[in-house]
Amino acid sequence: MEFTVGQIAEVLRGEVEGDATQRVDRLAKIEEARAGSLTFLANLKYEPHLYDTGATAVIVSRSLVLRQPVQAALIRVDDPYSSFTTLLEFYQQSSRTGRRGVEEPAHLGPGTQIGDNHYRGAFSYIGENCRIGQNVLIFPHAYIGDRCTIGDDTIIYAGAKLYADTVVGARCTIHAGAVLGSEGFGFAPQPDGSYRAIPQTGNVVLEDNVRIGANTTIDCATMGSTIIREGAKIDNLVQIAHNVEIGRHTVVAAQTGISGSTKIGDFCVLAGQTGLAGHLTLANRTTVTAQSGVGKSIKEEGVFLQGSPAFNLRDSLRANAIFRHLPDLERRLSQLERSRTEPEKP
Amino acid sequence: MEFTVGQIAEVLRGEVEGDATQRVDRLAKIEEARAGSLTFLANLKYEPHLYDTGATAVIVSRSLVLRQPVQAALIRVDDPYSSFTTLLEFYQQSSRTGRRGVEEPAHLGPGTQIGDNHYRGAFSYIGENCRIGQNVLIFPHAYIGDRCTIGDDTIIYAGAKLYADTVVGARCTIHAGAVLGSEGFGFAPQPDGSYRAIPQTGNVVLEDNVRIGANTTIDCATMGSTIIREGAKIDNLVQIAHNVEIGRHTVVAAQTGISGSTKIGDFCVLAGQTGLAGHLTLANRTTVTAQSGVGKSIKEEGVFLQGSPAFNLRDSLRANAIFRHLPDLERRLSQLERSRTEPEKP
Amino acid sequence: MEFTVGQIAEVLRGEVEGDATQRVDRLAKIEEARAGSLTFLANLKYEPHLYDTGATAVIVSRSLVLRQPVQAALIRVDDPYSSFTTLLEFYQQSSRTGRRGVEEPAHLGPGTQIGDNHYRGAFSYIGENCRIGQNVLIFPHAYIGDRCTIGDDTIIYAGAKLYADTVVGARCTIHAGAVLGSEGFGFAPQPDGSYRAIPQTGNVVLEDNVRIGANTTIDCATMGSTIIREGAKIDNLVQIAHNVEIGRHTVVAAQTGISGSTKIGDFCVLAGQTGLAGHLTLANRTTVTAQSGVGKSIKEEGVFLQGSPAFNLRDSLRANAIFRHLPDLERRLSQLERSRTEPEKP
Repeated sequence: MEFTVGQIAEVLRGEVEGDATQRVDRLAKIEEARAGSLTFLANLKYEPHLYDTGATAVIVSRSLVLRQPVQAALIRVDDPYSSFTTLLEFYQQSSRTGRRGVEEPAHLGPGTQIGDNHYRGAFSYIGENCRIGQNVLIFPHAYIGDRCTIGDDTIIYAGAKLYADTVVGARCTIHAGAVLGSEGFGFAPQPDGSYRAIPQTGNVVLEDNVRIGANTTIDCATMGSTIIREGAKIDNLVQIAHNVEIGRHTVVAAQTGISGSTKIGDFCVLAGQTGLAGHLTLANRTTVTAQSGVGKSIKEEGVFLQGSPAFNLRDSLRANAIFRHLPDLERRLSQLERSRTEPEKP
Repeated sequence: MEFTVGQIAEVLRGEVEGDATQRVDRLAKIEEARAGSLTFLANLKYEPHLYDTGATAVIVSRSLVLRQPVQAALIRVDDPYSSFTTLLEFYQQSSRTGRRGVEEPAHLGPGTQIGDNHYRGAFSYIGENCRIGQNVLIFPHAYIGDRCTIGDDTIIYAGAKLYADTVVGARCTIHAGAVLGSEGFGFAPQPDGSYRAIPQTGNVVLEDNVRIGANTTIDCATMGSTIIREGAKIDNLVQIAHNVEIGRHTVVAAQTGISGSTKIGDFCVLAGQTGLAGHLTLANRTTVTAQSGVGKSIKEEGVFLQGSPAFNLRDSLRANAIFRHLPDLERRLSQLERSRTEPEKP
Repeated sequence: MEFTVGQIAEVLRGEVEGDATQRVDRLAKIEEARAGSLTFLANLKYEPHLYDTGATAVIVSRSLVLRQPVQAALIRVDDPYSSFTTLLEFYQQSSRTGRRGVEEPAHLGPGTQIGDNHYRGAFSYIGENCRIGQNVLIFPHAYIGDRCTIGDDTIIYAGAKLYADTVVGARCTIHAGAVLGSEGFGFAPQPDGSYRAIPQTGNVVLEDNVRIGANTTIDCATMGSTIIREGAKIDNLVQIAHNVEIGRHTVVAAQTGISGSTKIGDFCVLAGQTGLAGHLTLANRTTVTAQSGVGKSIKEEGVFLQGSPAFNLRDSLRANAIFRHLPDLERRLSQLERSRTEPEKP
């Protein structure tokens, strides 16, 4: 994309101070901006950068009073942060997800319906009897098995894989390499110590506005559905086992693992690399700090957990503070023991 | 799939009580079953659900005595659980892995032999001089490098990747996105602090009945083979480094990482998110609990390990129980110290 | 590959003792070598294997004095280890990465330039307006989005995915299933508790000689670049969040996760399954042991860290040593308390 400063100002209904005919072709932070960059100043903590930035243009507030001369052109608007975010979204949509049409060869199975205005990249695969909504983007190498359902405005990035019978809502984003619907890890031990696979015939259901990160894996249910509820945001390399349910607007950071049949409430936050045992229930608004391992259900809402095994955050912080000084503790104890057996010094 | 209750009963050699002409098109748990669902009752703990289930039909024992009237049709068999499992397997095979033939375009390199009755999905890739058995399913986007060997009845799901020279046994399942044979992580430090890659010329060998989870990675050996022995079950997002060996019927849960050259015995269980250092040996029937980190070899069979660093489970549970109360411990110690320096109260 | 012992000796400028017409077709460790194998003896600790190895030929030092008769043919060279490494590299290059040309169908977008002597596998995808250097290998199912740049001699293995605008230097290796440039995990909480995605418009930049492991994920920057500097080696299943920077010749082992905006210095080592919080700075030559979780910046160079939360390795080892004996500690404390309240025995 390349626009003049004047064109940007017009879109944002702002006023230009400086040369409106200059061209900008990228967005940047004010401290990293160079010639050709458009940036913004919202937090006045960054104001000093305004006077030495290499940016071609800066979006600033109408009310900003300059304390020094500025090299860059200024675009004055009511709310610089909101205006800049609008540009970011526009940039992302126009340059990265603006593609439409079909690149051949792309596989489309018999009986599958797909809505208008979609993109299907080269080497994308859609199986039989799928129902796919409007404005859906399916990038190259994406795999969509038989009988899948995908809602409007959903984006499926390169090489994401949906096993048969997966259901994806509207406005979802599934990043590259994510796997939805792989067989749950369930085995019946046999008398000779070997294992026999328990058939996994359920599926995975994503409600609307769900985001799944790159290379994340979500197993299908043994029967029924593994469910990710509306608005939940799942980061990269997360493992979600069979029959798990993740509540509305819950956030799960990278490399977290959730064992089979665990139910997580709404508005929860699981930080990175946490682990949850199977068959647990976590109440709404539970927060689990990074690398913690949760082995018990949480019934009370709003609890913060830390540690492996995890317990109350406050108690965990205190215990950890002393843990570091265990050698001191041991020394003090030894001293007391010695003083007990020795005669007290006068 | 859609069958009448009568057809199901015939397959299972059962007897129908109720309307045998009704149709069922899915399998469900008794507490989640709705119209159109076929379910079963094996554990009598669930009997109350029998009288209010929404299922169209329920598989029950011939010996079951009803205590109330039942809406659903009943199919009476000798062993409801076993009959239902048979149906689950049938469902999985017919609807998900029943495909045969070739979807073009699919790449098949020169010199490669492949047995009868196979499926090769669109955009699947098989390199040169491979030997592939009968009844093998190779889903779309699967990649099989040159000189690979794959045994009979093996399933390779969408986008799984086998580097050149990988050997896979019979009746294996490799889930979507798994990578077998990537170069081991071995580097020789150079005088200037940089690293030079040590060539990795070995391969990965899976024996029969091995299961590899979605997006799991298994590096090839530096020389020789990284080996997963018969019947081992590996979950999703597991990392298995170069020259590792995993014993027969060993289970490795999700997100576990096993460092280079470590040998794990038969019938072991590694729970989720565990880590194993390199060059270790774990005896048969070792169990490692979730999130543990094992840094030493285990020579005795049947040991349970916990913690990071891991030690004996029993001792670890005791140490953790006190860890939570470290602030109390510190307080008690301080009190003793004070009482030591203060005169004893009479 | 299949060569006679004489041919190998000629390449290595070595001298044969024994039958130079025998054929070898694989490389092996001396203790695992069988008929047809070529192996080497560099470390004299392994000399006993020389006298009972099943290898067809062994590369040994010119100065080695035999203490027993040897069955295998010997190839005498100045430096057996270096000669063998040369063969390993030759084997890897000739058999695994020696392919050139284009396998159709392969997608090449308009406006893209690609240098001489490259390989593009079947079903590989290269978008629009990319600039790709010479001798580049792009394996089947690799995805390279629009406007990417790739330097000379870089290898992109099967199914690796580069989102639009990714920059990769020269002599890089990107393993199968790795994802570069997925959207950073950034969300603005809304008044109703839901989240709105913050547009992620930056990219990922790999400098020269970088190695990325299988199924590793690297998010693009919100603005600007997520940067992996020259010579850094990243293992499998690593998560690198938006705006992270990893220094020159830093090594990151498998399943490590690095949170947003953290900057890691040069020559650092992060062992397996470590986690780093966001917005940290780690000085050059920092070492973090396996499964540790770093929550604070490290300003001093050369520090070793352990634990979750991590602190100085030496202190951590001491604290862990006592942790195991916490039940003892508690018992000793209780005893002191009892003795305090009981009258002292005479």
